[in-house]
Amino acid sequence: MTYCVGLMVDQGLVFLSDTRTNAGIDNIARFRKMFTWEVPGERSLVLMTAGNLATSQAVVSMLEEGIEAGTSEEAAAMLGDNALPSLLKAPNMFRSAEIVGEAMVAVQKRFRKSLDQMNEAGGSTMILGGQRKGGTPRLFLVYPEGNCIEATEDTPFLQIGEHKYGKPILDRVIARDTPLEEARKAALLSMDSTLRSNLSVGMPLDLAVLPTDTCTLSERRRIEADDEDFHTLSENWSAALKDAFHGIL
Amino acid sequence: MTYCVGLMVDQGLVFLSDTRTNAGIDNIARFRKMFTWEVPGERSLVLMTAGNLATSQAVVSMLEEGIEAGTSEEAAAMLGDNALPSLLKAPNMFRSAEIVGEAMVAVQKRFRKSLDQMNEAGGSTMILGGQRKGGTPRLFLVYPEGNCIEATEDTPFLQIGEHKYGKPILDRVIARDTPLEEARKAALLSMDSTLRSNLSVGMPLDLAVLPTDTCTLSERRRIEADDEDFHTLSENWSAALKDAFHGIL
Repeated sequence: MTYCVGLMVDQGLVFLSDTRTNAGIDNIARFRKMFTWEVPGERSLVLMTAGNLATSQAVVSMLEEGIEAGTSEEAAAMLGDNALPSLLKAPNMFRSAEIVGEAMVAVQKRFRKSLDQMNEAGGSTMILGGQRKGGTPRLFLVYPEGNCIEATEDTPFLQIGEHKYGKPILDRVIARDTPLEEARKAALLSMDSTLRSNLSVGMPLDLAVLPTDTCTLSERRRIEADDEDFHTLSENWSAALKDAFHGIL
Repeated sequence: MTYCVGLMVDQGLVFLSDTRTNAGIDNIARFRKMFTWEVPGERSLVLMTAGNLATSQAVVSMLEEGIEAGTSEEAAAMLGDNALPSLLKAPNMFRSAEIVGEAMVAVQKRFRKSLDQMNEAGGSTMILGGQRKGGTPRLFLVYPEGNCIEATEDTPFLQIGEHKYGKPILDRVIARDTPLEEARKAALLSMDSTLRSNLSVGMPLDLAVLPTDTCTLSERRRIEADDEDFHTLSENWSAALKDAFHGIL
């Protein structure tokens, strides 16, 4: 399984994903589930994936082909099903989410028949967030069907994969006016709860932070299993939780 | 859905269940999921159910028939599939769990054909715990297939239904030497996290507490939606969590 969470607060966006994949409990591997594309100061995009790994990777490959080719909307329209416009040329974030959805549908169409024959689900679910210069930061969840929903004031975070363990902490502490640093901490603690309670989610983690109106990731790093800062945060949270638990009546 | 949790610590057993059932999100009802049978000082049993409500209720009815008739093991054996021995005459807790499993299998057998035809799952999952005078307190999870697992030193709690939201707190604070009063608090907070994050779990709650070697429930009550103690605990926990969150680095 997987756990990925994207948070949108006034000060910016936070993205966090794990790296564990499994095909059965006895077939565990490590794959990156976070992908970033950036023209610093102009546009920053972060994509996280959950679900069928083959589909996720094929979607990311298609998106990267479009970006590398610098395909315009017009050129993509002429090429039909075989090409996608570059995410970095999309006129807005909603169009970017649509392009991810189009890639999702195209990939599944290719394998629909054989997936159906094997009675296998080939879908992936993705979180896409970012900002384009002149636009606002936006955060989307793209469904296997290719359509999407967007985070709003009422729901400032989106989760994919094993979302239940890490939801209570987010439900309690995240609002739109939560400072970016606190949102970052909440994402890490939400992941920490999930890591402790579900073996199918595993270290290392990938973290990205995008402060509002900078169009430049202020942080993009891998948190390894022996990361001291994460370990300290986790231990402090554990101790603080226990204190809180024993302290209340 | 449902959330039920049973905890086994050295000082005793704690049981907590919600009461919400739903057949689709637009068909929500309130049903008791906790059942207790007791001969104070001699034997106390608590059963909690999750899954197909028709199956759960039929199983409970069968068990109650056996108890009311005071059916012995020998009589039940002679009656065959039509009768179960009384839970209150079982020689030990393991046999009690077996009897629950036998009821589960018998009920599903009756409806197997029509359930298969409708492609419906008819299974329930149950938690049974208690103590018989002269025995030790034990806690079992009975599967839809009728077999069961038992809580041990390594895993002092069992959950059925929507178990994920409320697991992180239990993973952190519950051990065999946790005092009974703290275990009771942990069960309530585990439920509180689930109630906040998942609409399919709802108030009121049913709570039962069985101190070790008393064979008498020290507490057996319904916690209504307007229960002041639960409300205060919930608010205090929320505040303590937020303080803990903001306090750590």
